[in-house]
Amino acid sequence: MKVLITGIDGYSGWPLALHLLARGHEVAGIDSFVTRRRVREVGSWSATPIPAWPKRQEAVRRLLGREIRFYRGDLARYPFVEEVLRTERPDAVVHLAEQRSAPYSMIDVHHAVATQAENLTGTLHLLYAMRELCPEAHLVKMGTMGEYGTPNVDIPEGFFEIEYRGRSDRLPFPRQAGSWYHWSKVFDSGDVMFATRIWGLRSTDVMQGVIYGIRTPEITDDALLTRFDFDEIWGTALNRFVVEAILGMPITPYGKGLQQRGFIALEDSMQSLRLAIEHPPAAGEYRVFNQFDAAYSINELAERTRAIAEEFGLHPTIEHPPDPRVEAEEHYYRPVHDHLTALGYRATRELNEVLRELFRDLRRFRRRLEAKRHVLLPVVQWRNADNAATLTARAGGPSAGPAPPPVAGTPPTRTEA
Amino acid sequence: MKVLITGIDGYSGWPLALHLLARGHEVAGIDSFVTRRRVREVGSWSATPIPAWPKRQEAVRRLLGREIRFYRGDLARYPFVEEVLRTERPDAVVHLAEQRSAPYSMIDVHHAVATQAENLTGTLHLLYAMRELCPEAHLVKMGTMGEYGTPNVDIPEGFFEIEYRGRSDRLPFPRQAGSWYHWSKVFDSGDVMFATRIWGLRSTDVMQGVIYGIRTPEITDDALLTRFDFDEIWGTALNRFVVEAILGMPITPYGKGLQQRGFIALEDSMQSLRLAIEHPPAAGEYRVFNQFDAAYSINELAERTRAIAEEFGLHPTIEHPPDPRVEAEEHYYRPVHDHLTALGYRATRELNEVLRELFRDLRRFRRRLEAKRHVLLPVVQWRNADNAATLTARAGGPSAGPAPPPVAGTPPTRTEA
Repeated sequence: MKVLITGIDGYSGWPLALHLLARGHEVAGIDSFVTRRRVREVGSWSATPIPAWPKRQEAVRRLLGREIRFYRGDLARYPFVEEVLRTERPDAVVHLAEQRSAPYSMIDVHHAVATQAENLTGTLHLLYAMRELCPEAHLVKMGTMGEYGTPNVDIPEGFFEIEYRGRSDRLPFPRQAGSWYHWSKVFDSGDVMFATRIWGLRSTDVMQGVIYGIRTPEITDDALLTRFDFDEIWGTALNRFVVEAILGMPITPYGKGLQQRGFIALEDSMQSLRLAIEHPPAAGEYRVFNQFDAAYSINELAERTRAIAEEFGLHPTIEHPPDPRVEAEEHYYRPVHDHLTALGYRATRELNEVLRELFRDLRRFRRRLEAKRHVLLPVVQWRNADNAATLTARAGGPSAGPAPPPVAGTPPTRTEA
Repeated sequence: MKVLITGIDGYSGWPLALHLLARGHEVAGIDSFVTRRRVREVGSWSATPIPAWPKRQEAVRRLLGREIRFYRGDLARYPFVEEVLRTERPDAVVHLAEQRSAPYSMIDVHHAVATQAENLTGTLHLLYAMRELCPEAHLVKMGTMGEYGTPNVDIPEGFFEIEYRGRSDRLPFPRQAGSWYHWSKVFDSGDVMFATRIWGLRSTDVMQGVIYGIRTPEITDDALLTRFDFDEIWGTALNRFVVEAILGMPITPYGKGLQQRGFIALEDSMQSLRLAIEHPPAAGEYRVFNQFDAAYSINELAERTRAIAEEFGLHPTIEHPPDPRVEAEEHYYRPVHDHLTALGYRATRELNEVLRELFRDLRRFRRRLEAKRHVLLPVVQWRNADNAATLTARAGGPSAGPAPPPVAGTPPTRTEA
């Protein structure tokens, strides 16, 4: 199949491209490199050194003997989106090109607006361009399990049958997101569901669990590595924990650490996305996949990280800084995940095993971690409306505040390494 | 109380200002006059001639002996929003400054994006500025009953207690909006709910029913009239029906006409908003009011209009054009509305009586209606992704397509009459 990946330069976009190529699919991609720039904006970088884009293409050519067609640009420009779809006419579009950090969206008003307006605009542009140029194609949209929040009932896959005051209906499950970023994904879900209904499109809305790991079988060379973010803004809790252990810092679950989330290994997330692509929904069908393997509490992740660290001769302690977020620190959590299993999904990776792999890989990049040890602890506080000054001070930038996010329609002009 | 109304030049913003002044409140307002411009963009105008803003202020001075402080500008500019709140420090902010037309949002991709990005940005800017400058103030946010769609169960006020798989929770009632515009209001609801929670703000989210009528007791002179839109884009079904009857055209409910919606008279909507303002919620409380009096089917509105038209010597027929929207034409509909009643709300106006008033008022402006009879029938089709060319042709504008909506941050430069 012909698959177009928006955000192909990103953490999951890149390994997805490799995975699909290895399975014989054709792959094209879009990126604006805005994530590279924004990670630098907060004073951080990827633990793994990420080659400039042309080098990535070259590595694919050399190591896999395959070609990735690439379009540099921003989904905020509608003519650009039209041009790519007109050229590609893909069978599937995997839409990963969104601002993906909750703390980034909570920095201040400008980051909040940028996150929501950009994510919504990109999704609307894709929906309209698909309606216009490839209405039979399948949109695989990256959402997040975080759209649901932590209700006191089981979480179904997108919809549930309820009885209320003596009548019944199948309704979208209520969303209770926990950051402007998470809300932007809720909004996307609404738009994708609606466009699918009025125009008869095909769409899969992926409620993605937190992905862990950096290895997939296709990553056979350092030139094919994907990015690994570990700072408070762009890294996940598990990423931070592993890096903290390697750097001899305490492992720091926020607050009580009893927050639970759904998790999935990078390789299994790629398997899931491929299964979604290879089994498209019917015209007019909007389906939701809860894409995760197991729910863990943050404390469990911390304990597991500590245990594996011991295997590597490291002896981290665990400390609990106050939770910078506004979230339930103790809650019920039982999301359903059957849809992917019905398509043949089977988990292939286990958390401890991936943790070992992470320690092995990341110790090689210890110097890159050392250089950024100051970006691990949380600065962005949900209760503050303006975290920009503190953040900029730490990043060593100008005290006037961070550069505003790029304006819609203005793609960055330089390639960022 | 000191009340700031965003969108004070609009259909409900203006009579709200008059109503609050008459009840002894202090009123300040913001507007960018974008609605005046956008109504002209689609080739229409208000049935009632609306004076330029300075004349409106002058009429209030002359007839009510009161002053409205006014700030011209766009909520898309954050420094402007900060400046107004810093100067005013209001007790309540009534946020009406949003793109409010479902068909306008469905014209094409640019109108879809403008509607959602502008509405979201304005609301986020207000939330942040209130957090910064008047965190104790009460935000009264204009939403719409259309956020709920038409589920097969009763519609509670924002939240419902459910039992699901043996457990129970109080959750936001699922939203299923029917246009990009309606979804923009759903998104606002998410953001207002979230900001209220993390920052302890006070907010009332008004699920506004369709408002009808143009009279309130404070409108004692033509210089104080509010706008009345009747074209397919900006007018409501009832507005179109009355104008069709006056112009000797058939009354045109879309499709089967069995679609039901909640309705409320303009005067009673003003009463409701005032009650919300005078009874603010507690800090950290996000409350939802379903603000309507009675549900009618579109056919019932058509029949009522025809009956009242007969009283005025008019004999309209009723014809059903195909529904340009994608919506259930037959459905269950029973929304709850108790919260306002608990605050002392009592309906004072009845539909037939307001219809008579409308016929009396609008016959005086028959010439303005005649001049625009071609804008009554639907051009904007939900199933089409691009309605711009047809619309522009009808509006007699350049065939290159409609002027794009104003870019965020660029308020219009001329006052529109």
